[in-house]
Amino acid sequence: MEVQTGNRFQIIDLTSQVEEELRRSNVRDGICLVYTPHTTTAVVVNEAEPGLLQDMLDKMRALVPESPHYRHGGDGNAHAHIQAALLGNSAVIPVERGSLLLGTWQRVLFLELDGPRRRRVMVKVLPGAGE
Amino acid sequence: MEVQTGNRFQIIDLTSQVEEELRRSNVRDGICLVYTPHTTTAVVVNEAEPGLLQDMLDKMRALVPESPHYRHGGDGNAHAHIQAALLGNSAVIPVERGSLLLGTWQRVLFLELDGPRRRRVMVKVLPGAGE
Amino acid sequence: MEVQTGNRFQIIDLTSQVEEELRRSNVRDGICLVYTPHTTTAVVVNEAEPGLLQDMLDKMRALVPESPHYRHGGDGNAHAHIQAALLGNSAVIPVERGSLLLGTWQRVLFLELDGPRRRRVMVKVLPGAGE
Repeated sequence: MEVQTGNRFQIIDLTSQVEEELRRSNVRDGICLVYTPHTTTAVVVNEAEPGLLQDMLDKMRALVPESPHYRHGGDGNAHAHIQAALLGNSAVIPVERGSLLLGTWQRVLFLELDGPRRRRVMVKVLPGAGE
Repeated sequence: MEVQTGNRFQIIDLTSQVEEELRRSNVRDGICLVYTPHTTTAVVVNEAEPGLLQDMLDKMRALVPESPHYRHGGDGNAHAHIQAALLGNSAVIPVERGSLLLGTWQRVLFLELDGPRRRRVMVKVLPGAGE
Repeated sequence: MEVQTGNRFQIIDLTSQVEEELRRSNVRDGICLVYTPHTTTAVVVNEAEPGLLQDMLDKMRALVPESPHYRHGGDGNAHAHIQAALLGNSAVIPVERGSLLLGTWQRVLFLELDGPRRRRVMVKVLPGAGE
């Protein structure tokens, strides 16, 4: 699965794409792992209301701000790595009757913390005891 | 699995209930996913000492305090969503010989961050290569 | 899997050891759970550049500092428990063709937050639909 981000910090709702991958797996019961292979992005399950997504990014930048004082040199993105470590690089979601068991307000969110870039996301579906 | 929380912020030890669900699954070897379908609650694995649980809630409220300045309107619970995103909405625990492989001090903790409410928690057990 | 940490705060790259456990499982396709059974350690997937690892520890100590004001008594390590809850005590990584599907810069990192101690880490591999 490919994701093109357009900003330095951005949150993208991946739910439809993950559901499409789940359908292709033909698994009816089990779990679905959504995994980002990058070190300056994150995957979380939460609400996708636009104001909230902005709040989330603002708060992550306030908790772990950019700064010239990190030891990690190179491209000066230590803050993005640490934000990613705090949020986590994967989500695991239960699957039943071929659907993600998301709650009413839950969406699968991809957080770009050092964009814009072309990113990949992996979806792995595992069958449960029922299959 | 249902959980009734009694306070705005509260941590509940779910370990016994999760073990009961594991027994019912009859899986002896694999993994156990504990998943909350809500966007203002979290699931973590840590110690359940009462003083520590209070410290944990105090620290989450200090890191991501309530404020009228969030963009997320509605019920004014942006702080609870962001705390939930930081802590994570699921835990995955290895299973062997029909038991959760928890460490000596580990318990499965449910964090209510915007209660009191009636909440649900899902437990999904997946068999490993040995079954 | 055993890990001997040498400092109070320390990050250890476990990738090679996890890959060795994966080889021993003979699973070619599925997921790999890396799990710490301790309550003052964490497992995250990120880059292992030494400067960044130091930044990560520094930032965790700044966000959740040691303090005599926590209620959790005993050994005065409430900060380490809360840091561990924020970072998470496990990582789940997709497996294909017998290898961890890590991104270019991703490594499996073990964070000691209250060392030095002898620690254990569990690796559980689950086969996917393809096996």
